[in-house]
Amino acid sequence: MRRNPLPARTMKGKQTSGESLQLLPVILSGGAGTRLWPLSRAEHPKPFLRLEGARSLLQATFRRAAALPGVTSILTVTHRELLFKTRDEYGAVKPDGLPTPLLLEPCSRNTAPSLAVSALWAECRHGPGTVLLALPADHLIGDEAAFARAVASAVRLAETGLLVTFGIRPDAPETRYGYLEAEGQRVLRFVEKPPEALAREFVRSGRFLWNAGIFCMRTGVFLEELATHAPELLAAVRETVAHTPGFGDGPDPVRLDAESFALVPDGSIDHVLMEHSRQVAVVPADFGWSDVGSWSALASLTRPDSSGNRTLGQVRTVASGDCYVQSPKRLATLVGVRDLIVVDTEDALLIAHRDRVDEVKAVVAGLQAQGHESALRHREVHRPWGSYTVLEEGSRFKIKRLVVRPRHALSLQMHHHRSEHWVVVSGTAEVENGGGKSLLQTDESTYIPAGTRHRLANPGLVDLVLIEVQSGEYLGEDDIVRFDDAWGRS
Amino acid sequence: MRRNPLPARTMKGKQTSGESLQLLPVILSGGAGTRLWPLSRAEHPKPFLRLEGARSLLQATFRRAAALPGVTSILTVTHRELLFKTRDEYGAVKPDGLPTPLLLEPCSRNTAPSLAVSALWAECRHGPGTVLLALPADHLIGDEAAFARAVASAVRLAETGLLVTFGIRPDAPETRYGYLEAEGQRVLRFVEKPPEALAREFVRSGRFLWNAGIFCMRTGVFLEELATHAPELLAAVRETVAHTPGFGDGPDPVRLDAESFALVPDGSIDHVLMEHSRQVAVVPADFGWSDVGSWSALASLTRPDSSGNRTLGQVRTVASGDCYVQSPKRLATLVGVRDLIVVDTEDALLIAHRDRVDEVKAVVAGLQAQGHESALRHREVHRPWGSYTVLEEGSRFKIKRLVVRPRHALSLQMHHHRSEHWVVVSGTAEVENGGGKSLLQTDESTYIPAGTRHRLANPGLVDLVLIEVQSGEYLGEDDIVRFDDAWGRS
Repeated sequence: MRRNPLPARTMKGKQTSGESLQLLPVILSGGAGTRLWPLSRAEHPKPFLRLEGARSLLQATFRRAAALPGVTSILTVTHRELLFKTRDEYGAVKPDGLPTPLLLEPCSRNTAPSLAVSALWAECRHGPGTVLLALPADHLIGDEAAFARAVASAVRLAETGLLVTFGIRPDAPETRYGYLEAEGQRVLRFVEKPPEALAREFVRSGRFLWNAGIFCMRTGVFLEELATHAPELLAAVRETVAHTPGFGDGPDPVRLDAESFALVPDGSIDHVLMEHSRQVAVVPADFGWSDVGSWSALASLTRPDSSGNRTLGQVRTVASGDCYVQSPKRLATLVGVRDLIVVDTEDALLIAHRDRVDEVKAVVAGLQAQGHESALRHREVHRPWGSYTVLEEGSRFKIKRLVVRPRHALSLQMHHHRSEHWVVVSGTAEVENGGGKSLLQTDESTYIPAGTRHRLANPGLVDLVLIEVQSGEYLGEDDIVRFDDAWGRS
Repeated sequence: MRRNPLPARTMKGKQTSGESLQLLPVILSGGAGTRLWPLSRAEHPKPFLRLEGARSLLQATFRRAAALPGVTSILTVTHRELLFKTRDEYGAVKPDGLPTPLLLEPCSRNTAPSLAVSALWAECRHGPGTVLLALPADHLIGDEAAFARAVASAVRLAETGLLVTFGIRPDAPETRYGYLEAEGQRVLRFVEKPPEALAREFVRSGRFLWNAGIFCMRTGVFLEELATHAPELLAAVRETVAHTPGFGDGPDPVRLDAESFALVPDGSIDHVLMEHSRQVAVVPADFGWSDVGSWSALASLTRPDSSGNRTLGQVRTVASGDCYVQSPKRLATLVGVRDLIVVDTEDALLIAHRDRVDEVKAVVAGLQAQGHESALRHREVHRPWGSYTVLEEGSRFKIKRLVVRPRHALSLQMHHHRSEHWVVVSGTAEVENGGGKSLLQTDESTYIPAGTRHRLANPGLVDLVLIEVQSGEYLGEDDIVRFDDAWGRS
């Protein structure tokens, strides 16, 4: 395996590709967001939630970054399992021609490693001196113009060699956040998650700001400070980079080497660096920020009715107050209850007291430990070619709805134990069944006997929606032999 | 329309059919049971609920009646819409050869009219002097032997010309029940739904019993007492009987005339008769009775865990106590809550404080007023030939699972706007499609184009399970033209 300490090489001016950039937004999209279960799942984490209208938090973050002046490329660091979902999200909002390189992590090691990898990548591809703007993909920002102004201030400070944080004026003694004491742009100290009494004092004093988790800094300054304050972490990240094929010059996406990245210590940039560095500055800002870090934070985004109930979907309340209810698909009725958070999804229901929502994490940890399906994914599962939803499962049969994107195809495959009936609900299907190929229009159907090689494709320009009725002795997803697969899964 | 005051005729000894009976159980199965919504629905009322193991309350009531000595026929009064469901329930538990005549009401008028019709019917079919045992079909009785002993005592008293009630020794100051003050078998007075303070006093005194709503009396005595205390009601019921074809001698079931029955005043036998008659006796009894008349009553049937939570199905609780949760199909999680009743069904969810469960009625009334589907029926809909469940509906498509009973068939029918794909999941289907007839085995499928006459039948000895994918512009249940129907619906 190739082993080359890349930053050293690029410092010597031997950069292999790319152009010099002033500002590179880095979208950090790896988080799990278990606090918003059952809406978020391991395979459908918080950045993918559509909390406000039609756009996901990730799409909103991307558009916000793309709208900043001088941005000619946006880097994203995410979990490798989220590659296709991330591309889908960007595809729907991306301006033509804007490069959107991806760094894929094999596991999550928190923000410090993600940003260290990003800095090394940026030096490699665009030379030293690039200013990074680290943007968590799971925050809400209400005032985009104020955000852009704050970024402009931060970039100016970053260019002078400072590590710049964004400080939000607190409007409540929130105990989930990190606080920083500031005097103008100077940061005096960080205080992580203070107890409530202390948080109240901070808010009262007027000298404390919430640490928004957004950072701006030159790659060189950041890497130097990391070398000083977290040398082991940086060394482990350099090791990963050295073992990652094509890191400096390969095609997109870059898949970080799993074995070495697993050895990188876990750490947030706050803990690892900001709390220790003497080069930290803050841009006080007020751009309608929320980290939507709990169900109570999310609840506050919905307008209450006269009883203090905030409801989304089909909800009826009788003699109930101060509840938040999200029930998009089924009727939820509340009778004589108060202060509840109720979140209903296809396969899991959460009922929590609003003062105990932090314990949702414990529920999810328990589900994950048992490999419970509802901790991992929703009923609707995304695939490179589209998505499928299991509608019903029973003895010897399973019914799925498949959506295949225009000009996409599933792999050429075969099942030993199940046969499949396909009924086209909308769009056009191209079906390879045994030897022959045929086209099926809306309302037409076909039958794939067990043991027959087959492939489903959508040759058209609109989504293909198809109902698949499987029958057989064994209907597990693992009864599949792939002969040819556009995504390297055969 | 024929008009003949039947009881007068039968009093003259001109009974047209039947034999003299000593004891005729009358199962009263018309109630709605909105208090147990969303488990009960207008078309799936409380008697059909399976609260304990595999048998419905109706089946348990039927078996209990059939097991009584001397029972050679069981009469049931129910809503006409429940005919097929009732026959299904009985079919699964009925001893061979036991006659189970049905009186079908076009609407519900409470127990007094139902029992008056039953008494007239019994005199007609079996002569005067039959002893009726009125059994609500929605109660639980734990000790069948004690029940049989109490009935034997009641029959002896009824034969002496008394109206006999069953009095349950109260173990709590329940305010939903009627109480009766007793001295031995003599009833001193009835007190309907006392306030809690009074109920406490009643329980303490030891002289009060709960009125279980079970009655035993000779038809003649009952009708005479009705003539004295509720002459208008009795006259209106006689009017219905006179306008009902085949009431005295027609085949089963007897469908009560809708126009005249609608004019019968609503009344419970307690209010209308028992509270006024001087011929009332009580059999004190202790046979593990519960009317399961609310979610809190139902909750008490489930054993609590160490935190006082009573759970059925997939339930996880964290820092929660004294809750009742029923979630058979999906994962329900509770975090930091107390004293909740949570009932989850396919299409509706109830979350109620356990002290406010009586207000569930108000929720259902609101839903009924709006014709909300969840007030009327479950996703699974029963039909004379079996049942169907809508699995998924979308633009231009609907997916159903059909279960057709052995040797049953749907009507010969045609749809203008939709075509149907059928896939046999298990069993054998006989399909009439346009001109021809064919047999489909498990895993085979067929296609019914819009405008084609078709019929689906199950010629086999096991259930036929079939997935139907409908597609078309309009998919309402009313797009159906029936040409031939075994149940007279064409």
